[in-house]
Amino acid sequence: MGAKVVTHIERVDAATIAGLAQAGVATVHEAQGRTGLLASHMRPIYSGARIAGSAVTISAPPGDNWMIHVAIEQLKEGDILVLSPTSPCEDGYFGDLLATSAMARGCIGLVIDAGVRDVRDLTQMGFPVWSKTVFAQGTVKATLGSVNVPVVCAGVMVNPGDVIVADDDGVCIVPRETAVAVLEKAREREANEEAKRARLRAGELGLDIYNMRGRLAELGLRYE
Amino acid sequence: MGAKVVTHIERVDAATIAGLAQAGVATVHEAQGRTGLLASHMRPIYSGARIAGSAVTISAPPGDNWMIHVAIEQLKEGDILVLSPTSPCEDGYFGDLLATSAMARGCIGLVIDAGVRDVRDLTQMGFPVWSKTVFAQGTVKATLGSVNVPVVCAGVMVNPGDVIVADDDGVCIVPRETAVAVLEKAREREANEEAKRARLRAGELGLDIYNMRGRLAELGLRYE
Amino acid sequence: MGAKVVTHIERVDAATIAGLAQAGVATVHEAQGRTGLLASHMRPIYSGARIAGSAVTISAPPGDNWMIHVAIEQLKEGDILVLSPTSPCEDGYFGDLLATSAMARGCIGLVIDAGVRDVRDLTQMGFPVWSKTVFAQGTVKATLGSVNVPVVCAGVMVNPGDVIVADDDGVCIVPRETAVAVLEKAREREANEEAKRARLRAGELGLDIYNMRGRLAELGLRYE
Amino acid sequence: MGAKVVTHIERVDAATIAGLAQAGVATVHEAQGRTGLLASHMRPIYSGARIAGSAVTISAPPGDNWMIHVAIEQLKEGDILVLSPTSPCEDGYFGDLLATSAMARGCIGLVIDAGVRDVRDLTQMGFPVWSKTVFAQGTVKATLGSVNVPVVCAGVMVNPGDVIVADDDGVCIVPRETAVAVLEKAREREANEEAKRARLRAGELGLDIYNMRGRLAELGLRYE
Amino acid sequence: MGAKVVTHIERVDAATIAGLAQAGVATVHEAQGRTGLLASHMRPIYSGARIAGSAVTISAPPGDNWMIHVAIEQLKEGDILVLSPTSPCEDGYFGDLLATSAMARGCIGLVIDAGVRDVRDLTQMGFPVWSKTVFAQGTVKATLGSVNVPVVCAGVMVNPGDVIVADDDGVCIVPRETAVAVLEKAREREANEEAKRARLRAGELGLDIYNMRGRLAELGLRYE
Amino acid sequence: MGAKVVTHIERVDAATIAGLAQAGVATVHEAQGRTGLLASHMRPIYSGARIAGSAVTISAPPGDNWMIHVAIEQLKEGDILVLSPTSPCEDGYFGDLLATSAMARGCIGLVIDAGVRDVRDLTQMGFPVWSKTVFAQGTVKATLGSVNVPVVCAGVMVNPGDVIVADDDGVCIVPRETAVAVLEKAREREANEEAKRARLRAGELGLDIYNMRGRLAELGLRYE
Repeated sequence: MGAKVVTHIERVDAATIAGLAQAGVATVHEAQGRTGLLASHMRPIYSGARIAGSAVTISAPPGDNWMIHVAIEQLKEGDILVLSPTSPCEDGYFGDLLATSAMARGCIGLVIDAGVRDVRDLTQMGFPVWSKTVFAQGTVKATLGSVNVPVVCAGVMVNPGDVIVADDDGVCIVPRETAVAVLEKAREREANEEAKRARLRAGELGLDIYNMRGRLAELGLRYE
Repeated sequence: MGAKVVTHIERVDAATIAGLAQAGVATVHEAQGRTGLLASHMRPIYSGARIAGSAVTISAPPGDNWMIHVAIEQLKEGDILVLSPTSPCEDGYFGDLLATSAMARGCIGLVIDAGVRDVRDLTQMGFPVWSKTVFAQGTVKATLGSVNVPVVCAGVMVNPGDVIVADDDGVCIVPRETAVAVLEKAREREANEEAKRARLRAGELGLDIYNMRGRLAELGLRYE
Repeated sequence: MGAKVVTHIERVDAATIAGLAQAGVATVHEAQGRTGLLASHMRPIYSGARIAGSAVTISAPPGDNWMIHVAIEQLKEGDILVLSPTSPCEDGYFGDLLATSAMARGCIGLVIDAGVRDVRDLTQMGFPVWSKTVFAQGTVKATLGSVNVPVVCAGVMVNPGDVIVADDDGVCIVPRETAVAVLEKAREREANEEAKRARLRAGELGLDIYNMRGRLAELGLRYE
Repeated sequence: MGAKVVTHIERVDAATIAGLAQAGVATVHEAQGRTGLLASHMRPIYSGARIAGSAVTISAPPGDNWMIHVAIEQLKEGDILVLSPTSPCEDGYFGDLLATSAMARGCIGLVIDAGVRDVRDLTQMGFPVWSKTVFAQGTVKATLGSVNVPVVCAGVMVNPGDVIVADDDGVCIVPRETAVAVLEKAREREANEEAKRARLRAGELGLDIYNMRGRLAELGLRYE
Repeated sequence: MGAKVVTHIERVDAATIAGLAQAGVATVHEAQGRTGLLASHMRPIYSGARIAGSAVTISAPPGDNWMIHVAIEQLKEGDILVLSPTSPCEDGYFGDLLATSAMARGCIGLVIDAGVRDVRDLTQMGFPVWSKTVFAQGTVKATLGSVNVPVVCAGVMVNPGDVIVADDDGVCIVPRETAVAVLEKAREREANEEAKRARLRAGELGLDIYNMRGRLAELGLRYE
Repeated sequence: MGAKVVTHIERVDAATIAGLAQAGVATVHEAQGRTGLLASHMRPIYSGARIAGSAVTISAPPGDNWMIHVAIEQLKEGDILVLSPTSPCEDGYFGDLLATSAMARGCIGLVIDAGVRDVRDLTQMGFPVWSKTVFAQGTVKATLGSVNVPVVCAGVMVNPGDVIVADDDGVCIVPRETAVAVLEKAREREANEEAKRARLRAGELGLDIYNMRGRLAELGLRYE
């Protein structure tokens, strides 16, 4: 159970990842059976980012960001760092220097169930972060953690190489093994929604489109 | 105590509603004796919206958005949907499809003591939402609730047809019966404030404008 | 232990304050040994503000904003109001009228461990506020508090005349006595960081720049 | 909308109230259609109390307990005080002196969406309190509130004279008008549960007693 | 990804489970490298319970306790039910009837990241529960979930058959595969602690027993 | 600003401390002008403890309990340890071994704005703790902190040697310099309350005892 770094992880192909980014969090979450959503306290530091990438995971002690340096060496182009502290923490593990380093190694974003700082700089750099809070509190480099091991982040199991999808709605995890199938379902869902959107926009009611009136009456809904 | 839909509700006239929207949450709240304010966790998904409308209320089970479809049929031009779950819930009851449908029926916004999703789309559509959280978590359509019944939403009693005033400060409820009187008081308050604003801007002190020095001294305030 | 107003307080010179503003919260917090940071719930009402100023402190009863009027008389050009309620409170102590008055007396911002309202107006006026929440709830003027006494605000001791540094990362307090020394350290830190930023941007790793590999191995980090 | 005291309120008969106390919170809540339950943060200061009584309601400003003195004059034998602050507050509005006074006037408990203090004394006196928190913070007597007006307490509308049922599970409100009918349903429910309890105790499964297997299969539950 | 029930799960032998119960949460958590601890909001409904058992897991929709009936059929002597809702929920999924049924089938306790009710009855029955809250809110039986699938409960991955250790300190999960090894380490730890406890009780300092003074001085700790 | 241990601190005489313990938290808090109360999240691990003692303070990094060992060496008979983490933390810094050691050195309790574990053992040992939470999460010994420096604990400034008063109502800090005066006022308050308690018990109203009716009428309270 000691501290370790797994240097080789499997990743999903780039096209699938791009497709999941384009589908977005809500659609992907639905497409995989309403699973994979990180807790609602995970919010973006700025609006409008919409990304997907392979998870490089970090299990770090509270208030200790040493392992982020270790993780950055493991990054490949298009990866997303995912940090889960070993106990609840709000400290600012990550700021503009680490973002500079991570971006230089291909990283496109950070998901952290703790705090982040230098958010003005990160915004200007276009480096999106989904975090529990914004907090400038500094951290130490004293205790080991692990990189690329399974972690539970904000209530969801994340394995290294899983696809992270993140946008203004939050963050959703797609297990590596099912990513292709989930993308397919997401596309079906989108196609299906497009037709419904047009009918709803025209003023048709969901009650009619989805044939709900019968079941509502059967369950006893009364109109007064 | 069964599930029901009240199909006819009284509404306040459009001019009064427009006046209340223009007065805004803080002024309206003061004008009606510092009442009616929803809890501070009710935040807008984007800045700058400033609306008022008649409440079409929804009492929905946790994680079940079926009644929103039922409520949309009851909407009239300018209405605002108000959803209160029957127990605390963060799920994303509402997204872009429901917003498309609600807008097509005249709805101008949503107040929900739960979660909302597709916030990027909703922002682009210009459909404002005040919610407890942003969360993509999907919901089911399995259990009945009620539409246009009195609900307590974020700590405040809301009757169908009450006027909902919402802006960047939050959400305030104006009972239908007192809306005209409240608007009148709000306007008096605004007029009164305008004069004071000018004096304060010129550097005069509230201590003098409001004659506070005597009472402060009487209660024992010491200057050192 | 009665209510009082201290009319004369020492302030730090303007150049030091300007330097601290420019350094920003995260750097200043680090420069003074990772101290002085207000709790993470203190968030700005709009993004992009970046200020520093001398603290004029207010200890106020819950739901009673009378002492803000008293404090405004004590303001000098460039000051920042710091309000701590005597027990937890979310009420909207401060809005556009008080901001108009405070600005007319030279105030450049507010830090309040409670609520604020009229945030749309405050944003348009360019008056930045860091607060616990946005809440329109009105307050009374019935009970005394104190001005320019030491207060604990959001977990940090603030003495009148201390330098308040505030930006998108939050709020940091610099004790008056150490402000010059802290600024010097902040500048050293910035200079030091600039060199590292360039190396990191070029793809060099923190592991190498900071010589971490030896210590990591010594503590037992394994690569698999 | 000014401050007022309603001196005459209707109460439910003592036998019905006693019956509701005996049924307890969970059963009463179910019997009235899963309504009336105060938020889960309302916890008893000691275990084992199980009471019901008529609500004498108090709407009080944050940090101001003046109206409790006013309310105590309105108490009749068997009443329960219900206090809701006009904005969120944790202060200790109530302690052993007020409890002594309230008990002397027939009061059998307090439900308060704020703080309480002297809990050791209250426990020894056998005066049960359900509160949001235990907090010794003192309050003032400066601003008016109202007594025996409708209030929303911990998310539920309470009218004066409604029956308050409280035990280790929390607090449930039974509207005065429906108290007799709710008690009848509660008793039916208890009778019904007794039979089921015996079968369950004997090892029979709810799956069989309630005939659930068919519907589960129909919805697609798979056994592996 | 549909709803399912896994009917056969592997369990750890009874002696190992008994040993882990005896070691308790804090020791077991340390023995497995400071992992496995559920979030601190998981509190016992009464003090003094100290159990361990094999997890029968339940993934249930918010506000829907149907799957508990399904899970009870899968219980064996000494098992512990572990329920995780698919989104955050406080509802009272479980009360005295379900406890009667579960006990009749050998269940010795419940761990639920949601609410529980009838806590007075449960206490009298000696059926311990660790929950997020106590809340009488009723639930429906309308939507499927799964039994004996991996779940994340209060921040920790739980596989069916894992050992649940629970006492006044909270709840710790021991993976089935490592339970024997963890027990061995727990016993070593206890033996080791016993010797230290005696020395500490005699007034010797941890500073000396653990030889800390040198390292403290080396890192720069100053005595004034 | 480095880590340090102050080895000599001033303490208040034992008789004053004993008097403050006997007065209790609520009375002491009132006697010193409603100041000094730690936040309401500081709760005792068991009911009935009622202590006072001199503060030996600890400023510790999150998740690092090394400094507790250092602090124990500084304890004198009757002292109370007060630990404030440098950023928010719930970890279990303290358990039965440290309690054994602290008790052996004269310590009578712990106040910690973080977590505690082994609460069953601590209860049996009669070692009271007021903490933010109960959490078994283990901590490291890697980073320095300070002992006997001023700290802000749960919102209140604590200087080493200040008197800590703690009971079922929470924790109150009495500055060393004012302890004698505060005790005197506390006793006056108790004497004063005793007379009122008798009158209230006899059914007299606070409205009359405190002559409130006139002022209530003057402010406009209406009876209906």
